[in-house]
Amino acid sequence: MRGVSIIGVGTTPFGVCEGVSLKELACKACLDALKDAGIDKREIQAFYVGNFISGILVGQETIAPLIANGIGLPKDVPATKVEGACCSGGIALRHGYLLVASGAADFVLVAGVEKMTSASTEKNTEGLASAFDQETEGRTGLTFPGFFALIARRHMHQYGTKPEHLGLVSVKNHSNGVSNPRARFRNPVSLDEVMASRIIADPLRLYDCCPISDGAAAAVLCPSDIAASFHPKPVDILSVAQTTGYSATYEMEDPTTLIATVKAAKQAYEMANITPHDVDVAEIHDCFTIAEIVDSEDLGFFPKGRGGFAVEEGQTLLDGKIPINPSGGLISKGHPVGATGLGQIYELVIQLRGEHENQVKGAEIGLAHNLGGTGQLCTVTILRRRA
Amino acid sequence: MRGVSIIGVGTTPFGVCEGVSLKELACKACLDALKDAGIDKREIQAFYVGNFISGILVGQETIAPLIANGIGLPKDVPATKVEGACCSGGIALRHGYLLVASGAADFVLVAGVEKMTSASTEKNTEGLASAFDQETEGRTGLTFPGFFALIARRHMHQYGTKPEHLGLVSVKNHSNGVSNPRARFRNPVSLDEVMASRIIADPLRLYDCCPISDGAAAAVLCPSDIAASFHPKPVDILSVAQTTGYSATYEMEDPTTLIATVKAAKQAYEMANITPHDVDVAEIHDCFTIAEIVDSEDLGFFPKGRGGFAVEEGQTLLDGKIPINPSGGLISKGHPVGATGLGQIYELVIQLRGEHENQVKGAEIGLAHNLGGTGQLCTVTILRRRA
Repeated sequence: MRGVSIIGVGTTPFGVCEGVSLKELACKACLDALKDAGIDKREIQAFYVGNFISGILVGQETIAPLIANGIGLPKDVPATKVEGACCSGGIALRHGYLLVASGAADFVLVAGVEKMTSASTEKNTEGLASAFDQETEGRTGLTFPGFFALIARRHMHQYGTKPEHLGLVSVKNHSNGVSNPRARFRNPVSLDEVMASRIIADPLRLYDCCPISDGAAAAVLCPSDIAASFHPKPVDILSVAQTTGYSATYEMEDPTTLIATVKAAKQAYEMANITPHDVDVAEIHDCFTIAEIVDSEDLGFFPKGRGGFAVEEGQTLLDGKIPINPSGGLISKGHPVGATGLGQIYELVIQLRGEHENQVKGAEIGLAHNLGGTGQLCTVTILRRRA
Repeated sequence: MRGVSIIGVGTTPFGVCEGVSLKELACKACLDALKDAGIDKREIQAFYVGNFISGILVGQETIAPLIANGIGLPKDVPATKVEGACCSGGIALRHGYLLVASGAADFVLVAGVEKMTSASTEKNTEGLASAFDQETEGRTGLTFPGFFALIARRHMHQYGTKPEHLGLVSVKNHSNGVSNPRARFRNPVSLDEVMASRIIADPLRLYDCCPISDGAAAAVLCPSDIAASFHPKPVDILSVAQTTGYSATYEMEDPTTLIATVKAAKQAYEMANITPHDVDVAEIHDCFTIAEIVDSEDLGFFPKGRGGFAVEEGQTLLDGKIPINPSGGLISKGHPVGATGLGQIYELVIQLRGEHENQVKGAEIGLAHNLGGTGQLCTVTILRRRA
């Protein structure tokens, strides 16, 4: 397997993109990525798009050839949609990576997209819930706020995590979002405001939850040995791991650990030959504040149970031990489901180019963690800038 | 790239599987394929499932980890859903092939599944139509019978194809389905019956259309050099090509040719180093009778415009020049959309093992042609039995 690098990234802002269709969002991100890479679209040999529920939300499936045609890719190019709930974007990246690493293709375009805000809240709730096993938990009426609330309660019970720990994740991520022009929410919130916001699923409050959003993001991949001829600051992909977790809560031994993350992190660190302590900046899947805490433990940044306390100690701030979600994360930047995984990659590439609005000084190694559904799927991607 | 072989196949019958869920259908096909391959599920290193519209029809997305957990695959195994409308199954096979060919994995399980008959006709029509571009043709109300009826009219106009040519495709495929225990329809129909059946979208009649169905199919892939240690009759994959076509009719120069098929066939023949005349048996995408005629021309079995006449001359019968759809095809076997591509592979593997109910004598090379939507996607797979 040969080295793979990212030579171009593109994105739309995440948020309410009124009057802009799913196809337009995706095409814009893809064209921006191609332009950033300085590569002609006729050079692209394969196209992947991550998307979760465009069929349910906007009545549009089979979007991979639709987008491929929209940007004018050649007809010889296979265009494939991959779906893995909120992890769809990370899966798209991994498939591009595999094709280039194996030598099956030299130039691959990968994208993620979701168009949510044109559908009703009820339709979004129904669509998101389609990630639950409909034969078991799905039919109980469990929703994703409910699922992560269960985890939060258990985490509090086992480790003494406090509601304020959750709140401080929201304060940090909103603060980071202020200076990110791609973020949906760009207003700071105080801990008092978070703690006074209304309960969504006890103990999770409004500001503990990421917002429904529209958006798209994309990247162009090529072999590492020719990457520098396309972009002056190529970013190398050290590893992308994809794993499977449990489909329902009752199957989990301990719901305060999401096994798919633990296994993906282990694979990704081994493949990249690094430890969690080598990571300089991380974009991780904070669909809810408790998720960021659990993820930060499962990824090995902190011992199990210490994630909330680490937030309180400022260890995840921009100048902390391990800056987490300098983009604002899903909480503030938004969570257009299928786009999120590649949105994380966009943010990290800009970081590793040294050009981020919330630049982590000297960042050399970045980690993206993308989680699907109840932790049924996970990708962990490790990126490195060149010396 | 190393050689890849199929060492196990499994399937459910295609049809109305009342009281059997999507998950159960897929698990059954997968477990049968693993058993047929004589391989332990713990050996599997990656899992792909092709599915089109489970989100819309049964409210269940994120089915890849769900099925992986249902059959007990290890959690280290990535489980990925791929979607490309009616071509989803072929795409799943191709992704398994790529992983094994590149050396990224040794044992891959691929499956396809759709559960349709539990949803209303309206829901099915809405779901199937989600493959159209909703910003252009989708909003005109065009349906798939309508789309293929347009092609049929044009084919008749340009080449003198007669309604009876279409009818004879239906007669042949129903006749083949009689002896296939996996087929939804096992009754013969006469040309008079076809021609007297009610108009669905002029000139297509009821018996020109494939039926909505439930079903699943699966296959186990491994490197060719160790295949014989798992199954006494391994089937080698000579090539799998995946291409992109136009997203809407108005973009096509000539709708009597589906360019994705032409390009996929060219790639697949070149990679396998054969010509169309070397193919002994073919399972091709006859979602409507006119599709089988157009496909048979686009695949190079007959000159453009001669497909209907070839049917009339008996060239596609079991003992004809190129036996097409000995399984009964989508017309008689049924079309559980996401499962169809792997259903074709199941039928061909049984053919190349010499064990099919409608065995083509001496069949050595088989071709599967799986088409998505308005020809937006296509896979062509070429298989060969060992001497």
